[in-house]
Amino acid sequence: MQVQGFSAAAAAAGIKYAGRPDLGLIFSAIPATAAGVFTTNRVKAAPVLLDRERLRAGQAQAILVNSGNANACTGAAGMAAAQTCSALTAQVLGIDEALVQVASTGVIGLPLPLAPFEQALPGLAKNLAPDRLREVARAMMTTDLVEKTASATVSIGGVPVRLAAMAKGSGMIRPDMATMLCFVLSDARIAPQTLDRLLHRAADESFNTITVDGDTSTNDTALVLANGLADNPRIDADNPEGVQVFGEALTRVCRDLALQIVADGEGASKLVHICVTGARTQAEARSAAQTIAESPLVKTAFFGADANWGRIIAALGRSNCGFRQDEVDIAFDKVLLVRKGQGLGPEAEQQATAVLQQKEFSVTVTLAEGRSSAEVHTCDLSFDYVKINADYRS
Amino acid sequence: MQVQGFSAAAAAAGIKYAGRPDLGLIFSAIPATAAGVFTTNRVKAAPVLLDRERLRAGQAQAILVNSGNANACTGAAGMAAAQTCSALTAQVLGIDEALVQVASTGVIGLPLPLAPFEQALPGLAKNLAPDRLREVARAMMTTDLVEKTASATVSIGGVPVRLAAMAKGSGMIRPDMATMLCFVLSDARIAPQTLDRLLHRAADESFNTITVDGDTSTNDTALVLANGLADNPRIDADNPEGVQVFGEALTRVCRDLALQIVADGEGASKLVHICVTGARTQAEARSAAQTIAESPLVKTAFFGADANWGRIIAALGRSNCGFRQDEVDIAFDKVLLVRKGQGLGPEAEQQATAVLQQKEFSVTVTLAEGRSSAEVHTCDLSFDYVKINADYRS
Repeated sequence: MQVQGFSAAAAAAGIKYAGRPDLGLIFSAIPATAAGVFTTNRVKAAPVLLDRERLRAGQAQAILVNSGNANACTGAAGMAAAQTCSALTAQVLGIDEALVQVASTGVIGLPLPLAPFEQALPGLAKNLAPDRLREVARAMMTTDLVEKTASATVSIGGVPVRLAAMAKGSGMIRPDMATMLCFVLSDARIAPQTLDRLLHRAADESFNTITVDGDTSTNDTALVLANGLADNPRIDADNPEGVQVFGEALTRVCRDLALQIVADGEGASKLVHICVTGARTQAEARSAAQTIAESPLVKTAFFGADANWGRIIAALGRSNCGFRQDEVDIAFDKVLLVRKGQGLGPEAEQQATAVLQQKEFSVTVTLAEGRSSAEVHTCDLSFDYVKINADYRS
Repeated sequence: MQVQGFSAAAAAAGIKYAGRPDLGLIFSAIPATAAGVFTTNRVKAAPVLLDRERLRAGQAQAILVNSGNANACTGAAGMAAAQTCSALTAQVLGIDEALVQVASTGVIGLPLPLAPFEQALPGLAKNLAPDRLREVARAMMTTDLVEKTASATVSIGGVPVRLAAMAKGSGMIRPDMATMLCFVLSDARIAPQTLDRLLHRAADESFNTITVDGDTSTNDTALVLANGLADNPRIDADNPEGVQVFGEALTRVCRDLALQIVADGEGASKLVHICVTGARTQAEARSAAQTIAESPLVKTAFFGADANWGRIIAALGRSNCGFRQDEVDIAFDKVLLVRKGQGLGPEAEQQATAVLQQKEFSVTVTLAEGRSSAEVHTCDLSFDYVKINADYRS
């Protein structure tokens, strides 16, 4: 988890709770090419609005992230607070304020207290070190039980290029363009437009394929900073091989983080891959997979290891996916349980139940309408999901 | 709960469990004008397909309903089983088979066993009595904790007309046209087309405004039988006052039953009315109310009596309703907690928390985009919802 030119630090600033890491800073020695994808929720937090505006220039040099407070629905005061935080960061780092990206996660609707930032930022700047990225990943956790990181090294024109990435997210996870917080750091030399395009594709194939509870956050943010210190042949439209290799690596680390988020979904005890094939269009396949993945009846059946395929087919039937009811097959991993819309009996069900007792498994729904398919990753709905969310603010 | 000409009986036929009432029969002394609304799920159970076809004639004389087995996703054998059940019913009652409506509720995908029907039906026919409608309401319960009935008497041209209605439903409740099982019996004399139109309107203003878990059933059925024995001036296009009075009564009993269903939602401890006003269109208002009402984060906050309005505004923001984020007010009953998109502080929150500790309350979201509004009724998401649905089939 190190990338040349990047350093990081974290602190317990007391934003919501005392003694719990809640503030992280990431710094690039030189300005980096930067891109971001943000929540499509109509309600957007102040840091999302600020970052999006600043990223038009395609550059960033620092990311300040806090947990404990989302700075969302905080009006003009919230926007002023986000700006103050970024100004303080620019000051302690001695860089242009426009190069600071800010990200917040936590409770919606409470004013962001500025004192913790004022007190903690000078120390954070002093403590910056290349091996502290993981500490930032921990500082941005809310209901997450584990920190989430991923990394990759690829060769661009014979030059090794490094990616290190981190994410947080456990509840209010139902991506639509981007979700949760994710920061990808790279030493790649890359054109801003290329980076932007590759990030959107990566988000679409990773964060946009997961769901914990169908709730889209107001603060979803995925940022990528590439400072060029690898000195690789520039990745741009004239370097299609570089675009492909870097794009795949970016998608891979985002996908890795996305699956870590679902596996650490609030209260989750199981990671389930819902795959729908044989649909007429990709949009229909996606709707089918998403509807199954979000059905509380399906998710509680996963929790209870109940091979209750009737709930899956009922969810399929209320999705926007067209199909003939007598042309539906359903399998749990390799166990075919439903053929042509009907159950295959007690023996198949017993085998399917064994699959559902695993920590991770697939549900494959095969239609006979076309050649489109989609996959969505979800988790089960457990007692702990209710416990966490009935108690979260108290 | 009596209507002239109607009699009923129920029995423990052993369809899934022994010794638990699971079969009900309703009989009208003469053929009744009949109408129905059915699930919009693409996957439809055999009885739904059979009933819908038969109702084209606008007449019915008997309803046979079973719990313990949905007879859904059972293929040609399932359709044959539904037909056999209706033929047996017609035989013991001595009526035309085309006048029998059948309804099933329970587990999806298991073959419907015919022996319990063969054994129980002769006794059911023998036991028919005017005061046994409530026994049918009990026999069709699955995860329901209480039976649900409603009744009304209205005057049509000076003649008293009676409505008695019953419903079942607790989980897999997210109506779209109709939901769950509901039977309305009346002695009104009414034109078939008028009855059909009034039932659709009643369903739209009752069952289509509730949600427990966002899951639409494969068996949703609402039937109304009106046998004309009240001898009122016929309710039809030439009797607008009759249409209005009867239509309002029909909507009232359906609404009464719909609220009983939500209050008895699986695991529910609270009944919550979500009202969205000031939207541009009714469809947008409905989308907003429905999205809030189905959000697991909102529903767990209700369970925890947490006035977490951030989750409400986040759900609003991912709905299909357009609005300006700084023009949103949110109130819990009469306690205004959010004004122009921002929280009103600890005192308002304390008062709102007290509201949330009640068994029943309203959440009113006021936008400033237009004059359209919509209301959706929901319940909280509790430990018991998970318990019921992780265990249901075992």
